[in-house]
Amino acid sequence: MDNRPIGVFDSGLGGLTCVKELMKVLPGEDIIYLGDTGRVPYGTRSRETIIKYTMQDIAFLEKHNVKRIVIACGTVSSVALDEIDKTGRVRITGVIDSAVAEAVRVTKNGKIGVMGTPATIASGSYEKKLLTLNPNLEIMSIPCPMFVPLVENGYIEDDNRVLNLVAQEYIEPLPRMGVDTVILGCTHYPLIQGCISKLVPDAILIDPGKQAALSLAEELMETGNLSDKRQSSYSFYVTDSTESFTKIGSVFLNRKITGKVERIEL
Amino acid sequence: MDNRPIGVFDSGLGGLTCVKELMKVLPGEDIIYLGDTGRVPYGTRSRETIIKYTMQDIAFLEKHNVKRIVIACGTVSSVALDEIDKTGRVRITGVIDSAVAEAVRVTKNGKIGVMGTPATIASGSYEKKLLTLNPNLEIMSIPCPMFVPLVENGYIEDDNRVLNLVAQEYIEPLPRMGVDTVILGCTHYPLIQGCISKLVPDAILIDPGKQAALSLAEELMETGNLSDKRQSSYSFYVTDSTESFTKIGSVFLNRKITGKVERIEL
Repeated sequence: MDNRPIGVFDSGLGGLTCVKELMKVLPGEDIIYLGDTGRVPYGTRSRETIIKYTMQDIAFLEKHNVKRIVIACGTVSSVALDEIDKTGRVRITGVIDSAVAEAVRVTKNGKIGVMGTPATIASGSYEKKLLTLNPNLEIMSIPCPMFVPLVENGYIEDDNRVLNLVAQEYIEPLPRMGVDTVILGCTHYPLIQGCISKLVPDAILIDPGKQAALSLAEELMETGNLSDKRQSSYSFYVTDSTESFTKIGSVFLNRKITGKVERIEL
Repeated sequence: MDNRPIGVFDSGLGGLTCVKELMKVLPGEDIIYLGDTGRVPYGTRSRETIIKYTMQDIAFLEKHNVKRIVIACGTVSSVALDEIDKTGRVRITGVIDSAVAEAVRVTKNGKIGVMGTPATIASGSYEKKLLTLNPNLEIMSIPCPMFVPLVENGYIEDDNRVLNLVAQEYIEPLPRMGVDTVILGCTHYPLIQGCISKLVPDAILIDPGKQAALSLAEELMETGNLSDKRQSSYSFYVTDSTESFTKIGSVFLNRKITGKVERIEL
């Protein structure tokens, strides 16, 4: 039994789609969320900058005595996780491993699509781990730089014309290749899975945030580190305005943000 | 005569459209450019965060013994300039005043459109200064949050379908209102003026970066502070990867970036 909170961080709001899943599968756990909204997005920045920001994010959560840290950011999980593991203080989970395991489990024809930010795709993180599990897979990786700004500016309806035009350009090679599984390698993408799904109707979409939540729940259960609290509490920390976080964040969390929301410096 | 360099800064690459104009009208001047590419964009952040970042940008340029600082960023000029002026060490020019003066000079029917980032439009900076010069103007201000990511991701051709779809949504009220002058209130917008111009064919487009360069040239001449150097030198400082700055920056500068490009911490 371990009643310390779970720490979750992301470059901005996107990680709340993972928090939503954590709240669902681990209703007894306290959660501390850090969104680096003052420096979002990470996905178009260089490796060195992403690592630097990540170290600051981790240090903040470690100060809050968390029992686990979930990196709810495809970019950070892809680019910086290897650097972070070396510190080894708190156990850190990214979103890659569990998504990769699930993709390999569900694919029937071995053809898998990966969508992500430019930094995630350039890192080759998903591709490498997929091929480690099964070297015979055929993988197509697609950088989708416009999806984060589109989602953050509300272009999320299934029939939105701008979203569909951009998505068509990105996704068009996937059904042609005949993929039966697509990894939504960025926390923002589950919000537009309706649109994506229409463009690859025969594929199963994998949400890494959801897989990470399920995998963490399993691990805490197996190691006897679940909380035994009756009521959980949630705290949110951001590096820019709390107002806009509270407002837009509720779309990602799919419910009103309650609990403490505080602005901090990293 | 003053041979010290001119300092220019922007949240990222956009300010290079202003540097391009400075190089044209002030060929004898040294220029030091700072692009805060590790934290771009500013235009969707809160006032407090924009002011904090701006103070760090200014402090960096002041250390380089510049004679003037040009804030080549519509957002910073709109949101933070009043805060900065109080420090009063180096004379600081924003991009608002000269653009507003030019708009008032060229409009015939007194109907002016202003396009900018959400932060610029929310500040009401252009509107206030336009009305100070002429209280009878009719002004329509339009926040265009998608233009910066679109330009930075290369959606800049006049006939690009995504760009046109987004631009139509934003610009559609301007010809209906009959504006004859439109201020392109963000340094990225001159790169898509072909597309914008098609949607308001009867309006004159004002480029604030160009106006700021002309106005600075005039001021340096009048006050006797031009450089008398035969050859000018250019230095560029960024807070993220120099490679991507050098590559994409040349599109904004409309020529190859030559001279020192260095990564720094703010």
